[in-house]
Amino acid sequence: MTRRNAAIIAVGTEMLGPLRQDSNSLWLSARLEEVGISVVRKSVVADDLDAIGEEVAASAGIAELVVTTGGLGPTADDMTVAAVARRLGFSLERNEAFLAEMRRRFERRGLRMAACNEKQADFIVGARVLANPRGTAPGFWIEHGGKDIIVLPGVPSEMKEIMEDSVLSELARRAGGAVSRRRVLRIAGMGESAVEEIVAPLYEKWKDDPVTILASPGEVQLHLKVTGPPEEAQRRLVSMEADFRAALGSRVYGVDGEDLPAALGKLLRERKETLALAESCTGGMIGSLITDVPGSSDYFLGGVVSYADSAKEGLLGVSPGTLARFGAVSVEVAGEMARGARERFGASVGASVTGIAGPDGGTPEKPVGTVCLAVSGPGERAIAKKRMFPGDRAVVRRAAALFCLHLIRRQVLEEPTPD
Amino acid sequence: MTRRNAAIIAVGTEMLGPLRQDSNSLWLSARLEEVGISVVRKSVVADDLDAIGEEVAASAGIAELVVTTGGLGPTADDMTVAAVARRLGFSLERNEAFLAEMRRRFERRGLRMAACNEKQADFIVGARVLANPRGTAPGFWIEHGGKDIIVLPGVPSEMKEIMEDSVLSELARRAGGAVSRRRVLRIAGMGESAVEEIVAPLYEKWKDDPVTILASPGEVQLHLKVTGPPEEAQRRLVSMEADFRAALGSRVYGVDGEDLPAALGKLLRERKETLALAESCTGGMIGSLITDVPGSSDYFLGGVVSYADSAKEGLLGVSPGTLARFGAVSVEVAGEMARGARERFGASVGASVTGIAGPDGGTPEKPVGTVCLAVSGPGERAIAKKRMFPGDRAVVRRAAALFCLHLIRRQVLEEPTPD
Repeated sequence: MTRRNAAIIAVGTEMLGPLRQDSNSLWLSARLEEVGISVVRKSVVADDLDAIGEEVAASAGIAELVVTTGGLGPTADDMTVAAVARRLGFSLERNEAFLAEMRRRFERRGLRMAACNEKQADFIVGARVLANPRGTAPGFWIEHGGKDIIVLPGVPSEMKEIMEDSVLSELARRAGGAVSRRRVLRIAGMGESAVEEIVAPLYEKWKDDPVTILASPGEVQLHLKVTGPPEEAQRRLVSMEADFRAALGSRVYGVDGEDLPAALGKLLRERKETLALAESCTGGMIGSLITDVPGSSDYFLGGVVSYADSAKEGLLGVSPGTLARFGAVSVEVAGEMARGARERFGASVGASVTGIAGPDGGTPEKPVGTVCLAVSGPGERAIAKKRMFPGDRAVVRRAAALFCLHLIRRQVLEEPTPD
Repeated sequence: MTRRNAAIIAVGTEMLGPLRQDSNSLWLSARLEEVGISVVRKSVVADDLDAIGEEVAASAGIAELVVTTGGLGPTADDMTVAAVARRLGFSLERNEAFLAEMRRRFERRGLRMAACNEKQADFIVGARVLANPRGTAPGFWIEHGGKDIIVLPGVPSEMKEIMEDSVLSELARRAGGAVSRRRVLRIAGMGESAVEEIVAPLYEKWKDDPVTILASPGEVQLHLKVTGPPEEAQRRLVSMEADFRAALGSRVYGVDGEDLPAALGKLLRERKETLALAESCTGGMIGSLITDVPGSSDYFLGGVVSYADSAKEGLLGVSPGTLARFGAVSVEVAGEMARGARERFGASVGASVTGIAGPDGGTPEKPVGTVCLAVSGPGERAIAKKRMFPGDRAVVRRAAALFCLHLIRRQVLEEPTPD
C-alpha cells in the first residue's frame, strides 16, 4: 500500500488580501483524500513570476503531487503557466489550432477576442494538456523529477470538471492501495446537540473511525469516514452508515452532495406532487434554492414574493381581516398565504414563510427572528408553525428557508414535525 | 519610506482537510495592510515538528515578518513553540512563576491541572513574551537574522487581542508611518477583458501601485491599492480612483463592500422608485438578492416567480398569443412580464428574466444560456435585451440575476446599456 501526499497552491494576489479566500483547496482536499492522498501543505501566493515558481519548486520538495489553481486567465496578472514552465525548465509554444478555435468561440458569441487572450493558447511543451470543457484555459500535467505537478484554472466549476474528467481516476489507479471513504448524512429541522444526543451511543462501537458533526444555519451534517483497502473500507462504511441511519430514521433527508432542495425535489417527483410558494421575509430565496436543482420545472410551478402587505391580499387572497387581527407575521396569515399560493398556481402543495428577519421591525411580542411558516396540502392536510431563529438577517433568512423545505418534506412524507 | 512584507502560517492538521479552513489570515491581512505591511504568502501546515520548522524558515527567507497562528495548546499535537525554537536555534526554559500561576488558575476553578498543560509554561529564551489576557498560552516575538517571527495562538479572540495589545502599534511605529489604503471599484454588465481594455491605458501612469482585476459571474472588481505615509497614500488613492472612474464612468456601480443589490437599493430609495419582479429561470434569486439588503421593503414590493407558463399568463397577464408566437424565452414575453409585474404590484418599475439555464431545455435557436430580460418604467421607458451567458446552470442563473439588477440600475439612471 502506497500512501501519497500532496501540496496545494492557490495563485492570486487577491487571496492574500482581506477580501477573498481560497476555497478550491477544501474541495481538492476532499477528492484527493478519496484516492488515498493526504494534503500536507496548502499555500497562497501572489501573481508574481518568481513567487509562483519558487512556491511550486518548494512544494515539489515536500510532496509527491503539487496542484496549483488560478492564474490561467487572459489578463496581465495571470502568469502561472509561464512561471511554472520557466522555473522547471520547460518551454512554451503557441498552439495555433487552439488559438483559432478560441477565436471561433468568441465569434460565435458575436464578440471580438481581445489580444490579451492569445496567451491562453501558450502550451507547456512536454506537458499533458487537460481539456477544459467549461472555459478557455486548459490545465497541464507535468512530470518533473519524479513529482507530478498539475496546473488548473481557479474558476471552481472549471477546476472541478478537469479534476473529475482528467485527473482523479488516474491518481486512483496509481494509488492502488488504501483509500478513504466518507459518507455525509444530512439532517434538517433540528440542532447539533439534539443530533449528538441521538447518535452518541454509537460512538463507542465506531471509536476507530472518526465521526464529525458540522452545523450550519438550518442544517446538521454527520461526516462518517473510514480508511483502508477499497473493499474493506467500503464494507465498513456501509455498516457504519446503517447503524447511524437506524438511530436517526427519516430525520436523514439526504446523503453526501444531495442538499435539501434536491432531496425534496426527488420526493415531489416520485409522489407526483406540484409545489407553489408564498414568500415574504425570504424574498424569493426558497424559490431560488428549489430552482437551483436541474429539472425542477417538473414539480415547481412558481411563487409569489409578497414583500408588501398589499401583495399578500391582492396576489394571494389573504383576507384583510386576518392581516388586521393577527398581523402579517402570524400563523394565521402564513396559513392563508400557503393556501393562496396553492390555489393561484393550481399546485397540489402550497407553502409559505412570513417573518421578521431584522435588523429592524421587531417588537416585544414579535422580536427579530420570529418566523411563521405553513404548508397546505397534499390533500386536506395543513400545518402552520411559529419559530424563533437566532442570528443576524442572513442567518434568520437562510434558517427560515431551509426549515420551510423541511416542513414541506415532512408533510409530503406524512410525518409530523414536533413543535 | 520602508515597505515591509509578511508571511502568515496557520498551524493545524485539521485545516488541511476538507472541513475546516484557516480564517485568521483574513483578519491578519487586513490589520497588517493598515500598518503598511503586505502579505506576500500564506500557508497552512500540519501539526508536525519538521513541517512547522521548515515552513517558518522558508517564510523568513521570503518575508521580513512571519506570523504563525495555532499549535500553542496543551495537547500532544500542539508543538509550534518547540518547532520554531528548535529550527531557529533557540532554547526553551520552563517558567516556574508562570507555571505556578497556571496551577492557581485551575485551582480557582476547582480543577486539577493536567500534566500536559505544563509545556505551556515553556518559554523561548531570548524571545519577547506576548501576554494573552484571554487564554493560557502566551505568544512570542522572536528577532532572528534581521527578521521578526511572531508566534500566536490559533483561537481567534486570543490571537486578535494579542495583536491589538502587543504587536500592531509596534509594527506601525517601526514602519515609520507607512500605511496601505485600498479601494475596490465594482462593475456589472461587462466582462473582465472588456474592463481591462478600458483601463489598460492607465496602467503605465500607476505602474508603482498594484491594480488587480477580479471577475466572478456577473461582476468585475478593480482593486486599487497604494502604500505610503498616511496622507500621501490617501491623496494618491483619491487621484488614482479619479483616473479609473473617469475611464469607466457610470459603469462603476459601487465601491468596496457595496454590492449591486445595495447600490441599486440606494438609487431606488433616492429616486423614490418602487420595484416589482417577474422571474422565470432565476426562480426567485433576484428577489432574494434584493431582500438581502436591510430596509429593502422601502422600495421592493414583491414579485412573481412564474416558473410554469400558465403562471406567466394567469399571474402576470402575458398574452397567450405572445407566448405561442415567440416562445416563453423571448424579448416579447420578457417585456410583457416586466409590464405585468409593474402593474400587478403597482410599482414604478417592473423587471423580468426568462431564460434557459440548462442543463436541458436548449434548442438550436435558443441554446442553454439564452436569457431575455426586460425593464418597464420608470415612466414610459422600456427596454428588453437578449443575452447569451456561458457556463453551467448556477453560473447562468447568477449572471442573469446580476445582469437584471444592472439593467434596472441603468434604466433608472436613464443611461442606455449597449447591446
